[in-house]
Amino acid sequence: MRSLLFAGASRPDLVAKLDRAGADAAIVDLEDAVPVAGKNEARAALPELVASVARTPVLVRVNAATTEWFDADLDAVAELGEAVAGVVVSKVEAPGELESAAGRLGEGAVVIAGIESARGVAQVEALLEAGASACYFGAEDYIADLGGRRTAEGTEALYARSRVALAARLAGVAALDQVVTDFRDDGAFERDAAAGRDLGYRGKLCIHPAQVPIANRVFSASEEELARARGILAAWEEGTARGIAAVEFEGEMIDGPAIRMARDTIERAG
Amino acid sequence: MRSLLFAGASRPDLVAKLDRAGADAAIVDLEDAVPVAGKNEARAALPELVASVARTPVLVRVNAATTEWFDADLDAVAELGEAVAGVVVSKVEAPGELESAAGRLGEGAVVIAGIESARGVAQVEALLEAGASACYFGAEDYIADLGGRRTAEGTEALYARSRVALAARLAGVAALDQVVTDFRDDGAFERDAAAGRDLGYRGKLCIHPAQVPIANRVFSASEEELARARGILAAWEEGTARGIAAVEFEGEMIDGPAIRMARDTIERAG
Amino acid sequence: MRSLLFAGASRPDLVAKLDRAGADAAIVDLEDAVPVAGKNEARAALPELVASVARTPVLVRVNAATTEWFDADLDAVAELGEAVAGVVVSKVEAPGELESAAGRLGEGAVVIAGIESARGVAQVEALLEAGASACYFGAEDYIADLGGRRTAEGTEALYARSRVALAARLAGVAALDQVVTDFRDDGAFERDAAAGRDLGYRGKLCIHPAQVPIANRVFSASEEELARARGILAAWEEGTARGIAAVEFEGEMIDGPAIRMARDTIERAG
Repeated sequence: MRSLLFAGASRPDLVAKLDRAGADAAIVDLEDAVPVAGKNEARAALPELVASVARTPVLVRVNAATTEWFDADLDAVAELGEAVAGVVVSKVEAPGELESAAGRLGEGAVVIAGIESARGVAQVEALLEAGASACYFGAEDYIADLGGRRTAEGTEALYARSRVALAARLAGVAALDQVVTDFRDDGAFERDAAAGRDLGYRGKLCIHPAQVPIANRVFSASEEELARARGILAAWEEGTARGIAAVEFEGEMIDGPAIRMARDTIERAG
Repeated sequence: MRSLLFAGASRPDLVAKLDRAGADAAIVDLEDAVPVAGKNEARAALPELVASVARTPVLVRVNAATTEWFDADLDAVAELGEAVAGVVVSKVEAPGELESAAGRLGEGAVVIAGIESARGVAQVEALLEAGASACYFGAEDYIADLGGRRTAEGTEALYARSRVALAARLAGVAALDQVVTDFRDDGAFERDAAAGRDLGYRGKLCIHPAQVPIANRVFSASEEELARARGILAAWEEGTARGIAAVEFEGEMIDGPAIRMARDTIERAG
Repeated sequence: MRSLLFAGASRPDLVAKLDRAGADAAIVDLEDAVPVAGKNEARAALPELVASVARTPVLVRVNAATTEWFDADLDAVAELGEAVAGVVVSKVEAPGELESAAGRLGEGAVVIAGIESARGVAQVEALLEAGASACYFGAEDYIADLGGRRTAEGTEALYARSRVALAARLAGVAALDQVVTDFRDDGAFERDAAAGRDLGYRGKLCIHPAQVPIANRVFSASEEELARARGILAAWEEGTARGIAAVEFEGEMIDGPAIRMARDTIERAG
């Protein structure tokens, strides 16, 4: 999942366009994108909304477990059965929330944990062991919770963003990277996506269709990266044949870690 | 508390000027600003020193619990009664130190925990649950303890500075940001204060009167920030009225987190 | 140990040159620098390899405890007795691995723990309490394990690199900094070494002789730093004599932390 594109459940016009963007997954949002007064109406519209997405796997983001809508949201997703790929639980702060979500959906349903609050980040290691199949880091909500401010560089979120990536690796689940709210600045999105990939993130939340192709590109290996990975493996194999494991490649010393990264790059490219 | 201005207890001349600076709080320091040979004399002078500050709430910073002066320092602060707003405990490394301080002072006294050592940062989550009403992060002492070096960018302290801000949020107490020792460089102070505010800090330790107005400005919402916050709320309310929760504002997608930040900005502006 | 220079145990030509580089320690590597097919041969050559290094203390890096070679590697190092200064354990992920290594070698043998995986970083605090005499942070392997990418700035590794430095301080052991694979770029190595020293690292792993003098220089106090440290102590002593503890020095406010850093600088310079 390199790209996951959001559309609010109170915006059937946007949901109907989700297929066009070419995202690896679509998220129909019952949480922040739906106003309080429209929560029940949006939930009731789910079957129709989900049916309007034909070619993209659909996930539904439900309101947080601390809200009055959580149970009804989960029930509505469960009733959709195999029409949805799974659920995204926002603002996860207790292991039981994920167990509850996983328990209500069928076997094989995806459960993505939203780590986007002080309590979520502080317990992320335990949370991700509790039945998540993936997680996302929500920098906007996390920094808002701390009373801070978001910047383009994102230094204020680096600690949490790094810690979530590590916790995801420990739990063996994919980490999905923070949104970029300034959806008109493609360069900012690309830089942020690249930084996310450097940290170990596997894909990115998108809030606008224009962000999807950038995420798909950044979270795939480029031709250049593939060529480099193949070159590294070839140099290493040639060295191994001569009994040498640490070889030089384009001015860098190549050994174990570089080999593992090169293999990972080629595997992800399929 | 946007600004807390230090003056050493062995410098009655500087203490007497504390009122002029316009800081939100004044700290009369018995710790690093007082030489070993002058500790008892400085402590004995506290009543007079505190009395010389008329318009600014006064806190007293006491020597660390591992020193021979800690108990006498706390007793001296306790005797000052309501003449002081509370105590700042330097180099906190065990929960009992804060409980001890809180227990000796009256109800309602402020206890600020100094997190400024390897052991302090490593236990900050537990320490701040032990009776602190606020905390500060001391980057100079922390990096000295690790045998590192301070830089203008502060990358070396980012992990600890971020972790302390998160722990403060979890404990529900205000986090106060590191000092800037180069007191002649207003620009460096302003950048450092802004970075602290981005991370969620609520105010800053000041070691020179010239730093106080900068801290007061950076840790208040600017007119521009207030106008933006009001604009965001207006756009959101207008969207809500039309049944839409995620709206566009100046090229950015505005939903839950942005609304929470805008409300926080307006609240802090009073 | 400001500089530790690697040579693969399957490269007797490089091992024989280790003395020339002027490193504080040499590491004969049985791990990533030796291909799988050559592991046993390289291990068998250890006595001869170690004997070829005359003037530099020698450490042997053994394969990780999860590999089939770990026990035989440790036995081979133990048999070398006082001909080696100790062992470097790669990819440490459980306290028993270090206890096992320390137990097999004689009293006084150095055991350096390699922290270079998700599990290693996540448990670094406990690992370093289990008998390590020092540790190194391996950014290449750590980021490869997370599926990320290494960059020149190293932002992707800052969280782990900072956390390892803190854990080392807590355990009272020296932290040794990450390698720089681009061995032709002296400037990159110097910047990376300086950043490591800022974080509290005491020395650096080197993969090429050209990196050694740079590491030795960066991890020693420069004449300028020594002069500054002496100036700070002099200003502070002069202030103390006048009953003042926080004094000005070259436009900065100098008190406890600056004094402690200055003393550390002078001590390290011997």
